[in-house]
Amino acid sequence: MKYALPIIAINYKAYSQAFGSKALEIAKAAEKVHRETGATIIIAPPFTELFRLKQAVEIPVFAQHADPIDPGAHTGYIPLEAIKEVGVDGVILNHSEHKLITTHLYKLIKKAKQLGLITLVCADEPEIGASIAVFNPDMIAVEPPELIGTGIPVSKAKPEVVTNSVSLIRKINDKVTILTGAGITTGDDVAAAIKLGTAGVLVASAVMKAKDPYKVILDMATKGLEALNR
Amino acid sequence: MKYALPIIAINYKAYSQAFGSKALEIAKAAEKVHRETGATIIIAPPFTELFRLKQAVEIPVFAQHADPIDPGAHTGYIPLEAIKEVGVDGVILNHSEHKLITTHLYKLIKKAKQLGLITLVCADEPEIGASIAVFNPDMIAVEPPELIGTGIPVSKAKPEVVTNSVSLIRKINDKVTILTGAGITTGDDVAAAIKLGTAGVLVASAVMKAKDPYKVILDMATKGLEALNR
Amino acid sequence: MKYALPIIAINYKAYSQAFGSKALEIAKAAEKVHRETGATIIIAPPFTELFRLKQAVEIPVFAQHADPIDPGAHTGYIPLEAIKEVGVDGVILNHSEHKLITTHLYKLIKKAKQLGLITLVCADEPEIGASIAVFNPDMIAVEPPELIGTGIPVSKAKPEVVTNSVSLIRKINDKVTILTGAGITTGDDVAAAIKLGTAGVLVASAVMKAKDPYKVILDMATKGLEALNR
Amino acid sequence: MKYALPIIAINYKAYSQAFGSKALEIAKAAEKVHRETGATIIIAPPFTELFRLKQAVEIPVFAQHADPIDPGAHTGYIPLEAIKEVGVDGVILNHSEHKLITTHLYKLIKKAKQLGLITLVCADEPEIGASIAVFNPDMIAVEPPELIGTGIPVSKAKPEVVTNSVSLIRKINDKVTILTGAGITTGDDVAAAIKLGTAGVLVASAVMKAKDPYKVILDMATKGLEALNR
Repeated sequence: MKYALPIIAINYKAYSQAFGSKALEIAKAAEKVHRETGATIIIAPPFTELFRLKQAVEIPVFAQHADPIDPGAHTGYIPLEAIKEVGVDGVILNHSEHKLITTHLYKLIKKAKQLGLITLVCADEPEIGASIAVFNPDMIAVEPPELIGTGIPVSKAKPEVVTNSVSLIRKINDKVTILTGAGITTGDDVAAAIKLGTAGVLVASAVMKAKDPYKVILDMATKGLEALNR
Repeated sequence: MKYALPIIAINYKAYSQAFGSKALEIAKAAEKVHRETGATIIIAPPFTELFRLKQAVEIPVFAQHADPIDPGAHTGYIPLEAIKEVGVDGVILNHSEHKLITTHLYKLIKKAKQLGLITLVCADEPEIGASIAVFNPDMIAVEPPELIGTGIPVSKAKPEVVTNSVSLIRKINDKVTILTGAGITTGDDVAAAIKLGTAGVLVASAVMKAKDPYKVILDMATKGLEALNR
Repeated sequence: MKYALPIIAINYKAYSQAFGSKALEIAKAAEKVHRETGATIIIAPPFTELFRLKQAVEIPVFAQHADPIDPGAHTGYIPLEAIKEVGVDGVILNHSEHKLITTHLYKLIKKAKQLGLITLVCADEPEIGASIAVFNPDMIAVEPPELIGTGIPVSKAKPEVVTNSVSLIRKINDKVTILTGAGITTGDDVAAAIKLGTAGVLVASAVMKAKDPYKVILDMATKGLEALNR
Repeated sequence: MKYALPIIAINYKAYSQAFGSKALEIAKAAEKVHRETGATIIIAPPFTELFRLKQAVEIPVFAQHADPIDPGAHTGYIPLEAIKEVGVDGVILNHSEHKLITTHLYKLIKKAKQLGLITLVCADEPEIGASIAVFNPDMIAVEPPELIGTGIPVSKAKPEVVTNSVSLIRKINDKVTILTGAGITTGDDVAAAIKLGTAGVLVASAVMKAKDPYKVILDMATKGLEALNR
């Protein structure tokens, strides 16, 4: 995996804006910012929107989750093969709103690699990021869940969580791309995250609930680029 | 809800045939049988295929499951609103491979009605069917899980499960449409189910793994119609 | 099952008072009130305290839950046979803090009967109580979870939940004993619950966190008896 | 933690022999072998038997699991504080029959240390053992679940799983005690496990279902000691 920095991954979650025409509008805004700045903008819509949005934009599209099953007699579950089939590029795993048991996480990371899907694995504490680094995913995003959706950015409120994550993860794995998240609202928060040693951020409500998502994403990409070039 | 009888609901599960071009081929076969016979053929593909298949055919498309959440900050879960958005007609709930706690089942049935989604609720024993009948879903499918995928049809191997289900459910609810399932393989199995007092069947592997799905669905619809008209 | 009325069931939950000497003190207080008033006082301590408390008192002791398994290769799970072995009298099932899928609930009620264990099944809405009544448990306790632990008694704040529960459950089952719960704090709340047609209450924090549990239980039993005799 | 080697940990699971008088008989047999050989014999009975057996024997008693909660309003769940209260010495976590999400496992290991409880964490593959080693538990037992209960000993059938586990775990953590398990049936299997670099074994059915548990445990302890002294 080689994504240009900074990386801004947008988790659509199941917000009402995550579906239908609004979902498409945000995807188009993300694509526009990518074209204008060169920053990597990843979108992660719900399962039901993956096909439609992957057809519509030329930026990386990730699933928000995959179930730890192989294709077969499973009703209402989505294996990695299902998301591969609709053309997505990667998958978020172990989000703090959809955590996995360790064995399932390991097996999903291993199978995603075989299928050519990029993995972005969430960790809610630095030590958990280090533990997951043993499984060698492509990206780890450390997100203290108590800050998610609060607008209090981890990169400012708990910079030690970010620096500690980078330090613990690097002891185990020197290749994995490290992101952070939780409370990231503005371009300044992204710049702060990058100065603390990460490659970018995982965001959700700040973009999804924005009056003008394009403006928010553009600010994040621009300030992120500035921080990298300093 | 007023569907013509017999009703043949095809659960795609997560079989490898449930995705991509094979999924479309089965949907087209189901639509063809509906046009030729007038029987109701429902297809229930995985979340990731709902949009694509709903665009492609003019028969009822159901989701296989919905998560007991409202739109909001939930990662990797699919609320009823998400499946409504892609245009599906209804939802299977409480399949024996994806059972729900009673409270969630009740709330999902209630909300599906508000959203105009038809509910097909599975029960693995007659008493459970009766218990669910209190919640007044549109359809209840009684499926002994020990027969699912075996090719041993419940309508022949355990006719008392079917008659007992009809009798217990009717004591509670005289409107709900009753289906049966598990091991249904041929048109004769469908005919047997209808003679035992049901409105049709829920099938999966017999269609999904068939060399010629059209032929299997056509046989089921034809024999089902014959049984109704006798 | 034939318990004298009123019935006051005390769910110990996992409060810090639910363990060790404090757990024993509350059990002894419950037994004392039973001896003085004749009311049925049931205690439901955590699994780890069942043996010790069952040895210590001569009032009904219930488990708070049982897992839907048979004895065998299951690590860290507790089948009904395990609680039967330590001599308990019954089991709470489907508490709103530990809900069960409908199939498991049905099977546990059926097996509990075979083992001679009394079942007290929780429901968080009247319709759910009616649905569970189909399975014919010994007792159903309707508890709106939004009131649990608030001190706002269901019998006063939402009397229609109680009367509606009684009415819907009685349409299905004329034998099951009906309790209510959530926010029950004083003897007056118990009296109100009984006047609304129930046989008693399921309580937790009001007793477990009381400075003088004996006094609280005595008030509940006394006022409950008065309401019955009016 | 400093336990004499070899370590033989007996998981009672929920076998019918795990309850009542048979549970006590096996505990007494384990204690007798410990006294005769000096080997560490740990027993892990179900929650409901912990108090009774801890009173009866003077060998380490572990719980089979603990729930990731703090004391409070939780019905039917068992926090670490509950098992501490009945005097047990430690806890098995993440058994392949009761797996935990990574965050919960991390928090339980951290809290167990604060409470003075010894942790024995299971891993079903070598890489998972390495990942868990980041959390620094007292013991890690690597058990391929496909061999559990088969009588095919991991130490003979898959020696590379054992050596690979030791090697991967030691890269991360040089203090944690390493056990293995799955299919361990005889003293020879224990000896093989020790020769592959472990400190002992986690066993279940071979002891629990034995006609003469004392004889089986004695054989395991004796052969384990011989292997250590070679």
